[in-house]
Amino acid sequence: MPKLEFWISIGSTYSYLSVSRIGALAEREAVSIDWRPFSVREIMTEMDNIPFATKPVKAAYMWRDIERRARDHGLSPQLPAPYPLENFDRANRIGVLASEEGWFGAYVTATYQAWFEEGVPAGTVENLTRVLPGCGQQMDRVVADAESERIGAAYAAATQDARDRGIFGAPSFVCEDGELFWGDDRLEAAIEWARR
Amino acid sequence: MPKLEFWISIGSTYSYLSVSRIGALAEREAVSIDWRPFSVREIMTEMDNIPFATKPVKAAYMWRDIERRARDHGLSPQLPAPYPLENFDRANRIGVLASEEGWFGAYVTATYQAWFEEGVPAGTVENLTRVLPGCGQQMDRVVADAESERIGAAYAAATQDARDRGIFGAPSFVCEDGELFWGDDRLEAAIEWARR
Repeated sequence: MPKLEFWISIGSTYSYLSVSRIGALAEREAVSIDWRPFSVREIMTEMDNIPFATKPVKAAYMWRDIERRARDHGLSPQLPAPYPLENFDRANRIGVLASEEGWFGAYVTATYQAWFEEGVPAGTVENLTRVLPGCGQQMDRVVADAESERIGAAYAAATQDARDRGIFGAPSFVCEDGELFWGDDRLEAAIEWARR
Repeated sequence: MPKLEFWISIGSTYSYLSVSRIGALAEREAVSIDWRPFSVREIMTEMDNIPFATKPVKAAYMWRDIERRARDHGLSPQLPAPYPLENFDRANRIGVLASEEGWFGAYVTATYQAWFEEGVPAGTVENLTRVLPGCGQQMDRVVADAESERIGAAYAAATQDARDRGIFGAPSFVCEDGELFWGDDRLEAAIEWARR
């Protein structure tokens, strides 16, 4: 089965769309998805790439665009979702831990649902309270492990792996031959490329 | 027939794709296209929105992405095209003149072909030498008129019209109800919206 890396950083807005639809799409197209958490914020800060926080007109369009596309996919988000995230790194460090332990897909999907559909920001205690039990996880253990040096190093290494692939935004998709696609609107093209 | 405004600034890279394909697409979908030149650079500078010039990793991806999409549309650009344009404003002021006189579609299409397919930057004398005869225009007259105060005012007014619509990038598409779509990859969605 062809493989596709799905590079995701919890905090990216358009990733809500990809997270919500990639599972069914990949199953239908018989592509195996490798979910890869990293810090897109670190890379974007390095590049002085600030797409929305200081650009209200562009941010307003982004929410409208997500709303239209969500509707096309049968999703019902409450927009605008709280943005930007205060607990960006915590959400993603837990993602790195979850990835090591095999529950990242369930975690990131539930995290985005609570954030985009119920208005509970990712990375907060309230969000984790809703999300972790469904992943079979206990909050205190997860938060402590995610704050460990070991997970910090794994998070930095994952972000370096993203940098090495030429990734500058999220969501991004990387095929087995290294071909990179950026943005939820390139998901179908990435899957088509992966299947060639 | 439903109408769709096509807001374009010669200098935008992804606009090559839209310019090259919108005519046939609009004819097939029975949508009337209103070609609207403006200065996206002025708006993007105001917003401190610098997508590629200072971001080499993102720029490299942009060229690769355009190449893939051009191939899907049966186009054969020589990439990367010269970028950014030195004669951005001249190319667009001529566009405003052309729009008033009814030859903008032919002008912008030939301009992008020379720029993206033959490597001759838009707005240069060499580009105009190739493009203007096919539009039935004489270079000296066109350049002089484009430099006039009247055209300068019309260019500024067009850019203000874009701002009033919430436009922050090019290409952009605006439906009769004001719905805005940004980017060549939203052209199909804009046409679908316009036809509702």
